[in-house]
Amino acid sequence: MELLAVPDVPEIREGDDLAAVITDRIDLRPDDVVVVASTVVSKAEGRFADLAEFPDGPRAREIAGRLESITGDEKDPRFAQAVLEESTELLMEAPFLLTETKFGHVGVNAGIDRSNVPGHDLLLLPERPSESAARIREGLPHGNPVVVTDTSGRPFRHGQAAVAVGWDGMPGNRDWRGEHDRDGRELGVTVQCVVDELAGAANLVAGEGDGGKPIVVVRDWAFGDHDGHDSVFRDVDSDFVRQALRGWEFDDA
Amino acid sequence: MELLAVPDVPEIREGDDLAAVITDRIDLRPDDVVVVASTVVSKAEGRFADLAEFPDGPRAREIAGRLESITGDEKDPRFAQAVLEESTELLMEAPFLLTETKFGHVGVNAGIDRSNVPGHDLLLLPERPSESAARIREGLPHGNPVVVTDTSGRPFRHGQAAVAVGWDGMPGNRDWRGEHDRDGRELGVTVQCVVDELAGAANLVAGEGDGGKPIVVVRDWAFGDHDGHDSVFRDVDSDFVRQALRGWEFDDA
Ligand SMILES: Nc1nc2c(ncn2[C@@H]2O[C@H](COP(=O)(O)OP(=O)(O)O)[C@@H](O)[C@H]2O)c(=O)[nH]1
Ligand SMILES: Nc1nc2c(ncn2[C@@H]2O[C@H](COP(=O)(O)OP(=O)(O)O)[C@@H](O)[C@H]2O)c(=O)[nH]1
Ligand SMILES: [Mn+2]
Ligand SMILES: [Mn+2]
Ligand SMILES: [Mn+2]
Ligand SMILES: [Mn+2]
Repeated sequence: MELLAVPDVPEIREGDDLAAVITDRIDLRPDDVVVVASTVVSKAEGRFADLAEFPDGPRAREIAGRLESITGDEKDPRFAQAVLEESTELLMEAPFLLTETKFGHVGVNAGIDRSNVPGHDLLLLPERPSESAARIREGLPHGNPVVVTDTSGRPFRHGQAAVAVGWDGMPGNRDWRGEHDRDGRELGVTVQCVVDELAGAANLVAGEGDGGKPIVVVRDWAFGDHDGHDSVFRDVDSDFVRQALRGWEFDDA
Repeated sequence: MELLAVPDVPEIREGDDLAAVITDRIDLRPDDVVVVASTVVSKAEGRFADLAEFPDGPRAREIAGRLESITGDEKDPRFAQAVLEESTELLMEAPFLLTETKFGHVGVNAGIDRSNVPGHDLLLLPERPSESAARIREGLPHGNPVVVTDTSGRPFRHGQAAVAVGWDGMPGNRDWRGEHDRDGRELGVTVQCVVDELAGAANLVAGEGDGGKPIVVVRDWAFGDHDGHDSVFRDVDSDFVRQALRGWEFDDA
């Protein structure tokens, strides 16, 4: 398996055709998977925003006021308003905002970025990243699978890692149910989230800073002859951590 | 960046020298990182166990009884006892066991495996996986960095993915603090858990079943000129999900 950064990707602007950006710079093979940082998908889709577009309501002011008193840092209530508008559920309000985005991904600040956003205050995640992946895929020569990623924090572990927020052309999970281990026993681990592992792999090449390598091609890797399915975002019924967070309250004292 | 499975790794037995297994089969270059599934590290370290070695106490019987009545499946209280003995804290008792292992990793069933364990009931995680990584590393020609992985579930997302449980020869996290984005703004994302991203990348090649590729070499990737640190496992003070779980109780009804 090989990972190749697409070379010389320019600064992406609203309206740019990412499939053309890719195919102009690299000869894709039929089995290549293309992994794209959400940042450039958002830019191409014009998901820039300014704080002025999110006049704060009372709920946003309450949240920002509380975060300000906890952290001692100034918090713009319009940012809280933007997060609220991108989300369907608030999992944590303090000491930071953890929400479920409208498309099902759980992330801090609904994945709204303030880095790598020229000329605007904010960059929102793509509205429906799997649809974005499908659109990019349409423009690729072999209908190559596309994974859209974002860097995300996680419980239990320090440090962020890239995960998939959208994908098309391959299942999100490799399902090993019914398959066997080396001793013929049925497998304990049954579902492997390959799109998250692809996201993490690509992020080793892309990086977080000014490296400018938002698009990575994964070559000589295959999903293989397994069942697959697309349910990567847990709903609250199957997520005990979300259930626990519903009953929890940060202690401001 | 390239990922190469070490070819023809045999069934690993207690006492096997994993560094020799690697160097006999692949010519490592100075910058290669070696990623090893914990399964084979455990086998080499003789971390096989049988249920008979874990006579159940009252706590284990209580846990197993409750899991049995919730799931309707038979649960051996000696397995619960094994999990207790490998752990420092129980984060969840039902509907499955989520614990902190003695070395700080949070995982289901303390990472005890029942797959790929010939001739025994159980395979425990290495006692101190970072020390295991250091020992393997000593036998590698260039003191190559070593990452020991395990497949692990996560909150918010379906499907498992490999994460690092131990590492040596490189920092666990790449620290971007003080670095800048493409517009000269200080970065929002500050800490990238590269050992987890390496684990995920390698697992795409290793797989979960009977593929037999537990050792993967990562070539032409560099940690780069960044600060780094090794705190990957959160302690409870910085982990609000763990705090929330302390106050939460699964509803058996
Ligand atoms: N060439 C190019 N690189 C970009 C652009 N925007 C971001 N990047 C790079 O893409 C990578 C990922 O950026 P990041 O802000 O971490 O994206 P996110 O993880 O999707 O939120 C980094 O290497 C950035 O330098 C762009 O418009 N053009
Ligand atoms: N060659 C070889 N492969 C093994 C051995 N044990 C496990 N594997 C393979 O290593 C990979 C990872 O195994 P898995 O049980 O998922 O390990 P874990 O994720 O570390 O718990 C799979 O491809 C297995 O087939 C062994 O002793 N020898
Ligand atoms: Mn982002
Ligand atoms: Mn990023
Ligand atoms: Mn395991
Ligand atoms: Mn595994």
